[in-house]
Amino acid sequence: MLVARSIDHARRAVAEARAAGQQIAFVPTMGALHAGHTSLIDAARDSSACVVVSIYVNPTQFGPNEDFTIYPRTFEADSEAAIRAGTHLLFAPTDSEIYPVNDQTRVHPGPLAEKLCGPYRPGHFEGVCTVVAKLFNIIQPDIAYFGQKDAQQALIIQRMVEDLRMPVRIIVCPTVRDPDGLAMSSRNARLAPKDRAMALSLYKSLCLARDRLIAGENSLGRIIAAMRSTIGEHAEIRVDYLSIVDAATLETPLTPAGRLLIAGAIRIGRTRLIDNLVVDLPTA
Amino acid sequence: MLVARSIDHARRAVAEARAAGQQIAFVPTMGALHAGHTSLIDAARDSSACVVVSIYVNPTQFGPNEDFTIYPRTFEADSEAAIRAGTHLLFAPTDSEIYPVNDQTRVHPGPLAEKLCGPYRPGHFEGVCTVVAKLFNIIQPDIAYFGQKDAQQALIIQRMVEDLRMPVRIIVCPTVRDPDGLAMSSRNARLAPKDRAMALSLYKSLCLARDRLIAGENSLGRIIAAMRSTIGEHAEIRVDYLSIVDAATLETPLTPAGRLLIAGAIRIGRTRLIDNLVVDLPTA
Repeated sequence: MLVARSIDHARRAVAEARAAGQQIAFVPTMGALHAGHTSLIDAARDSSACVVVSIYVNPTQFGPNEDFTIYPRTFEADSEAAIRAGTHLLFAPTDSEIYPVNDQTRVHPGPLAEKLCGPYRPGHFEGVCTVVAKLFNIIQPDIAYFGQKDAQQALIIQRMVEDLRMPVRIIVCPTVRDPDGLAMSSRNARLAPKDRAMALSLYKSLCLARDRLIAGENSLGRIIAAMRSTIGEHAEIRVDYLSIVDAATLETPLTPAGRLLIAGAIRIGRTRLIDNLVVDLPTA
Repeated sequence: MLVARSIDHARRAVAEARAAGQQIAFVPTMGALHAGHTSLIDAARDSSACVVVSIYVNPTQFGPNEDFTIYPRTFEADSEAAIRAGTHLLFAPTDSEIYPVNDQTRVHPGPLAEKLCGPYRPGHFEGVCTVVAKLFNIIQPDIAYFGQKDAQQALIIQRMVEDLRMPVRIIVCPTVRDPDGLAMSSRNARLAPKDRAMALSLYKSLCLARDRLIAGENSLGRIIAAMRSTIGEHAEIRVDYLSIVDAATLETPLTPAGRLLIAGAIRIGRTRLIDNLVVDLPTA
């Protein structure tokens, strides 16, 4: 596996792969790789002869009071995990490669970024779109992989790619979970054992909503109230939101129908966790 | 010359040229081609085996009270001019190719877009950056040509390309002028003969400023006052601004030194005209 710290180095490696007729698959990450990330690398390797993984903890997607400084940084373990998963090129840029002197251009997502996590993380999705646009322009992949765990992010990136006519295909891979259902997240590493048990209540509330929707319950308000009491048993948890929305528009539907996204965000101490499930109901 | 109306068609043509080992040069335009545009096409042809010209009157770079609906549209004459200039591919997309259903992503330029024309055309440079990003993603040129007449636009696009790490080289070509000095502009076509004479006062004021700066005049305020009286002789002209700024940052310098941009924007009826000169002074 080649490790590139500079844009020039990464581009040369990608150009060589392309000259050899290889398809380029790309998995952008912030490191602290877990089984969710490696499932993306697996999928990339299945599709393409050249797999590029990036590790970059992007400052512009963190708010001033968020966990940028304490976000887990585990480059050596990540590097080994990337090798084991079959990565060909690991791009781990320095800050100045991504944000040059006088950097000021931003990719601004539209209304999709104002839903769900939007109000709780102002500027977050602009930071995400901007860094992903930069990384796409550096790597110029044919295909790129994102996780369904970050459902809103995946939707916004698909929108960006469609809107800006970026020549890359986006694949969204299923959320990978621990055996008890907790969605894999780099932030789980920061949960004490008792926090971890509490964190699981988010997933339980999503399952409860899914089961009620499938059973034909048609009051979204009642379902969300039930989700909230599932989580409310733990006083140390602050709920940012629990929502049931149209999976494509993120708008709240009048009645539950079609493809819905059940999504939630909670905070335990300084750790913010998100999770979601998709449920397909008959169309209205 | 091939004419492509769709992204697919344009991409196929570009891919063929690239497969043949050709460098791709790109000249994005809004049509109503004049000698300024053809000078860009000439430069593109000199550098590259494959020259792509786009013609698209981009709605998002016009304000609600601007001249989008009356902007000159002269496709047949443009097509002939493009052929004569040696264009290989003319990309003239339909609106839905550039702005798909639910389009919402925008490329937002930073502080550079707030200077000069910025306050007078809110949203203009965001529209410019967004459409140029889309066109770059569609054509994927190696090199792209812009005119110095739109100096602020050229600077903002260079900033965007640098910031977003777009794999394209930007070349800015000199302003092309009529024999009397009037900068070529598609909007000149809308000037009545007496308006044209008035329009020339903008260029005269720029020359006056240039000459005074070179002569060592060091009060920017006095120079701009003199520019304003040059133009003020024509009561039908409204001046948006007359500015002398650092050519790289567009900031007003404390004293005239280094590379300066002398720029102005005036309006005659519904026609808004801009022009500029660059002057190199000794550094402070």
